[in-house]
Amino acid sequence: MFTLITKDKNSQARIGKLFTAHGEIDTPCFMPVGTQGTVKTLSPAELEESGAQIILANAYHLFLRPGLEVIKKAGGLHKFMSWPKPLLTDSGGYQIFSLALLRKVSDAGVEFQSHIDGMKHFFTPETVVQIQVDYGSDIIMPLDECAHYPCAKDYAEVAMRRTIDWAKRSKTAMNEYQAASHKQNLLFAIIQGATYEDLRRECSKVLTEMGFDGYAIGGVSVGEPQDLRYNITHLVTSMLPEDRPRYLMGVGMPQDILESVEMGIDMFDCVIPTRYGRNGTAFTSVGKLTVRNSPYIEDLNPLDPQCSCYTCKNFSRSYLRHLFNTQELLGLRLVTLHNVHFYLELMRKAKEAIRRDKFTEFKKEFLNNYVSSQ
Amino acid sequence: MFTLITKDKNSQARIGKLFTAHGEIDTPCFMPVGTQGTVKTLSPAELEESGAQIILANAYHLFLRPGLEVIKKAGGLHKFMSWPKPLLTDSGGYQIFSLALLRKVSDAGVEFQSHIDGMKHFFTPETVVQIQVDYGSDIIMPLDECAHYPCAKDYAEVAMRRTIDWAKRSKTAMNEYQAASHKQNLLFAIIQGATYEDLRRECSKVLTEMGFDGYAIGGVSVGEPQDLRYNITHLVTSMLPEDRPRYLMGVGMPQDILESVEMGIDMFDCVIPTRYGRNGTAFTSVGKLTVRNSPYIEDLNPLDPQCSCYTCKNFSRSYLRHLFNTQELLGLRLVTLHNVHFYLELMRKAKEAIRRDKFTEFKKEFLNNYVSSQ
Repeated sequence: MFTLITKDKNSQARIGKLFTAHGEIDTPCFMPVGTQGTVKTLSPAELEESGAQIILANAYHLFLRPGLEVIKKAGGLHKFMSWPKPLLTDSGGYQIFSLALLRKVSDAGVEFQSHIDGMKHFFTPETVVQIQVDYGSDIIMPLDECAHYPCAKDYAEVAMRRTIDWAKRSKTAMNEYQAASHKQNLLFAIIQGATYEDLRRECSKVLTEMGFDGYAIGGVSVGEPQDLRYNITHLVTSMLPEDRPRYLMGVGMPQDILESVEMGIDMFDCVIPTRYGRNGTAFTSVGKLTVRNSPYIEDLNPLDPQCSCYTCKNFSRSYLRHLFNTQELLGLRLVTLHNVHFYLELMRKAKEAIRRDKFTEFKKEFLNNYVSSQ
Repeated sequence: MFTLITKDKNSQARIGKLFTAHGEIDTPCFMPVGTQGTVKTLSPAELEESGAQIILANAYHLFLRPGLEVIKKAGGLHKFMSWPKPLLTDSGGYQIFSLALLRKVSDAGVEFQSHIDGMKHFFTPETVVQIQVDYGSDIIMPLDECAHYPCAKDYAEVAMRRTIDWAKRSKTAMNEYQAASHKQNLLFAIIQGATYEDLRRECSKVLTEMGFDGYAIGGVSVGEPQDLRYNITHLVTSMLPEDRPRYLMGVGMPQDILESVEMGIDMFDCVIPTRYGRNGTAFTSVGKLTVRNSPYIEDLNPLDPQCSCYTCKNFSRSYLRHLFNTQELLGLRLVTLHNVHFYLELMRKAKEAIRRDKFTEFKKEFLNNYVSSQ
């Protein structure tokens, strides 16, 4: 299911391969985010050409629209969205706690009102697993309770214990569904505990003893300072088994991703490349570039002269600026495509560096070019 | 420059080939509209894959944004927008008379205020030719005065005579630029005269005697009833030389295009396939389909089972409806792509039918399937 291929001699960075029913994933990997069953503005063909091996969708959003029955009738989420490769679905725990209205959490589960139409729904750990199994997700995330930052310790502890209990129930439910269906979906656990080291330690210990196909670090990228996030990532990663993939949820900027790869993280997802792309901000080897700005009016260079994506091979900053200036949708597409390509290329380069035991040098060089010019 | 290849034995429909500096165009052809230097939502690669041999851009819009200097610095419009094939630019006469503010028309030219920022500009027939030469357009349209419907005859006559005078000045300007630059841009004339047969006749006679590389019928699709448009199209076409391409500006729906091909029209442009696409309305072999509507919630068929476009090969109506329902930009792209493919495919089928002297049968069969189910 997961093979650790090699470790960088001078850091915790590692290369692995994750096997799923829809194909293999080389780690460390970045998963473009397709919340509503589409990576915003991009076609599945473009994602494949960019080298995406796995994308993410959101169980909560897709449950509300188009609804489980529509996806089931289509033969699952892969067929519905015409994405033949691996899919990870987030449980929607985070979204219920950030988007949904009037939620009531109890040990049984969470009652909430849709942020779209106010309809009431009740999610339990069991229903959330069932929904993702019905989607046909390759990697299933259990329902968890994600504490925001800052969070009082007593509340963080309650949320952490509930997350553990729900993970256990998710595993039981998963075992039952798998016994009945012979499907090979993987179930990850999500480690919570806010910024409290003892809570994170306890959560890591209990969940790894329970045994899951992979481990995610949740409750990060929720507003906490960067050094706290790094501390927690480092602490939790040190407690995770070597032979399972590690997923840092919702992270992040290129520099955050490289720092986390160095600590031994294998998987990432983040809306940043797509959201910034729609905003006209491109990631380049020398830092961020806001192409709608007037300095680019007559700039005939591509976004990043070092980049080989369709956008950079064909279009100038001047043209892209014109597209944003005239509200043309092609601009959103082209910068998003570039950004996704940039993130995926960053992961390819990271793997190459790990293979040569040069990850730390690679990171330093990348950051030197990237940050110094900002 | 234009070769008439064959005529349908039983109608006026004809097949030709137009030669430009950026490649050949098989007629009858449909030109997707890229007003601001982009066919809305589509990439140049998608247009090429769909079989587009020529697209249209607008001299007025591009003059305002990004401005002539930006496009000149990029090396022309082809390079600016990364479109390697033929480009036709509309002069913007129509847009000045419909979009611009506080215009003052005189025989000298037209003064107007930009609809974007209120800046004053003055266009003459000579500057409009110069702008399009600087863009590097393969087919240049002269400044004209387009009368809207309904239009009093005395006003229509003034506009028609001014259009003739401006066409003459455009030709002189074009000859001078070409003598200096050795470039091979083609200059078309635009026939005006509103719905008045004698005015249309006079305009056709004078302009064809003057001699242009092609002839456009302007002042149609401006609100007039369909039968008046057909009458005018038929009348003007009968007066045009056989050995020059004929372009019906701004038309139209699939049925209008086929009727006009039957009368001997060679070239079309229209915003309908792209505008309807962004609205969630698809053109199919059995008529229009508004995919955002609820009957398609669980419909697993493609937009058109007979279509071979990327959208129809990969996505269901159910998925496309979901994309529109959740305001996902991929929906706009995919239906636009299908519609452009549908229009280009319609022209391919029309040519095939003309080649077999079966155009009228083809038109009848198409309309029978297309209209009867609406």
